[in-house]
Amino acid sequence: MNAYHIPNPGNFLKLDAMESPYVPNQDFLTEFTNFLSKVEINRYPDPEADELVLSLRNLMGIDASLGILLGNGSDELIQILALACGEGESIMSFSPSFVMYELITKYTRLNFIDSPLSNFDINLEKSIDLIKTKKPKIIFIAYPNNPTGNLFNRKKIETIIQSTDALVVLDEAYYAYADDTFLNDILKYENLVLLRTISKIGFAGARLGLLIGSKETLGELNKIRLPYNINSLTQATCKFLLNKKNYLQSHADLIINERNDLIESLKKYRNITVFPSQANFVLIKILESEKLFNFLLEKKILIKNLSKIKGLKNYLRITIGSQKDNSIFISALDEFFKKNKNANFK
Amino acid sequence: MNAYHIPNPGNFLKLDAMESPYVPNQDFLTEFTNFLSKVEINRYPDPEADELVLSLRNLMGIDASLGILLGNGSDELIQILALACGEGESIMSFSPSFVMYELITKYTRLNFIDSPLSNFDINLEKSIDLIKTKKPKIIFIAYPNNPTGNLFNRKKIETIIQSTDALVVLDEAYYAYADDTFLNDILKYENLVLLRTISKIGFAGARLGLLIGSKETLGELNKIRLPYNINSLTQATCKFLLNKKNYLQSHADLIINERNDLIESLKKYRNITVFPSQANFVLIKILESEKLFNFLLEKKILIKNLSKIKGLKNYLRITIGSQKDNSIFISALDEFFKKNKNANFK
Repeated sequence: MNAYHIPNPGNFLKLDAMESPYVPNQDFLTEFTNFLSKVEINRYPDPEADELVLSLRNLMGIDASLGILLGNGSDELIQILALACGEGESIMSFSPSFVMYELITKYTRLNFIDSPLSNFDINLEKSIDLIKTKKPKIIFIAYPNNPTGNLFNRKKIETIIQSTDALVVLDEAYYAYADDTFLNDILKYENLVLLRTISKIGFAGARLGLLIGSKETLGELNKIRLPYNINSLTQATCKFLLNKKNYLQSHADLIINERNDLIESLKKYRNITVFPSQANFVLIKILESEKLFNFLLEKKILIKNLSKIKGLKNYLRITIGSQKDNSIFISALDEFFKKNKNANFK
Repeated sequence: MNAYHIPNPGNFLKLDAMESPYVPNQDFLTEFTNFLSKVEINRYPDPEADELVLSLRNLMGIDASLGILLGNGSDELIQILALACGEGESIMSFSPSFVMYELITKYTRLNFIDSPLSNFDINLEKSIDLIKTKKPKIIFIAYPNNPTGNLFNRKKIETIIQSTDALVVLDEAYYAYADDTFLNDILKYENLVLLRTISKIGFAGARLGLLIGSKETLGELNKIRLPYNINSLTQATCKFLLNKKNYLQSHADLIINERNDLIESLKKYRNITVFPSQANFVLIKILESEKLFNFLLEKKILIKNLSKIKGLKNYLRITIGSQKDNSIFISALDEFFKKNKNANFK
């Protein structure tokens, strides 16, 4: 088993990790550090993080009838879900998708069932067959999917939810950039919960994820949450920053515009295939992906090379940056194609 | 299975949770919040937290030849250790001791082996027998022990370490208040690692624990650590605060003095049995423990009632507070005995 740890990037333009390019403005920072200095760091945190939960309800419009469970990033919540399974049980997901579903399944000594995507969408027949024969306890569905960026067909997801007693975890990490959500479907389906994070909306450094579901389901999962898992600094910081709802929404709107602009720019290169995106990143395919990736590295621009992932040979993933970041990237791309105009990209 | 979650204490004098009564002084706070405002909250944290690790090395005098693994509190590290075990394997510890060893063993679907203490020390014969017959993969030893406050006999621990291939985890959560440590023994024993936390030295709100051991052992455990588990706020806060070595040492010295004074004061009550402590809390036994606990609650003083723990009927645990906190506690104790002078404490 290998660790999933990322090398320190140093002084790069980071377009690899779906981080927001926007930092809180100076006014907020002064207010915020003032606020932070009142944290009683010598005392244990509020074990239920009630005020932070309220901020999240308000930011995301989560009904009071629904429960919320917090984790140190989605990762800890995926781990809690996996630990709720019994010995020898199985977790199912799709490929390619977020790698932590499979890794955490293995860390927690469970079996992983992989349902490969067809044309980046769910293969419904294959999936229903796997559900019936392998009987997974949990099914993770990333919506939008990472690293492909698209939303799977909604009807297929609904069919899966209705076909099984397994807990279906819809991972909406990129919800802020997507046209659809299952937030309003939770009360409709007993076996549906939603996973979200604030990593992609400006706060990757805070490592805060949340699971949204019925109070009954989350009450059971809460029993295996480690007490005091969300520290006081995270609670104070996030409840402050997440209350800036309009400010955060304006950043999400900017990213969506930037994404659409970047997609248009990318479509102009005949050697690049661009895929539709509902997230804050764009997937592209290019025959000389390795060469382009290394060229950008030399230019101190870091994007994500997906070539080693099964089914993604020659695919690259670019996180949407600020307008300036994206134009630096496009300039580098121009330079690459100018330099390689005689190369064979077929 | 029940959750180990603690109710919000409200406006109490908190002498229940081994928190330090001291907050960082105002000079530090200004410097610190300035420092925090430079954290790039929109970026993922340093996955290895290198600078924080350096601060911990310096604070605790941990040799560069040793590895350090960080967790969100000791709890996450206990969970990582448990997840490193195989399906169906066992973890051993002693009773009474820190409850999370047993809880996390169960959360991770492993078997828990309990070796009951004799007179609050390790029963060596029984323990060696359990090790030989039940073959635990990990043995947790709290040193000093919580909730009893004493150091187990060092020779017995050494005998246990030498008697087994199991990984022995010496939990030194209270190291700052103890006369002994196994820090210098790690290189001597291949199967010894040390668990520490900064919760008891002033930073319970930060939820930072560390495992200290050979680089080889920690390298293996690091593979199941979730990436980016220590968030940017924790990294920045802790690396700043932990660099104030002399300041933290002066707080530890104050607590040790306060503890010794409190023990002397408690010994004057003929109805109370006081136990020796190498930690920032004191264990006492009193026949009317329930009555005293409730009396203190009414006075808005929160201590820990241990009566429901097997073998600890009528035991209470008092965390060492500031001089003022402790004198409020002693005054309340005086009042209790004055009010109950005709009660039967035998």
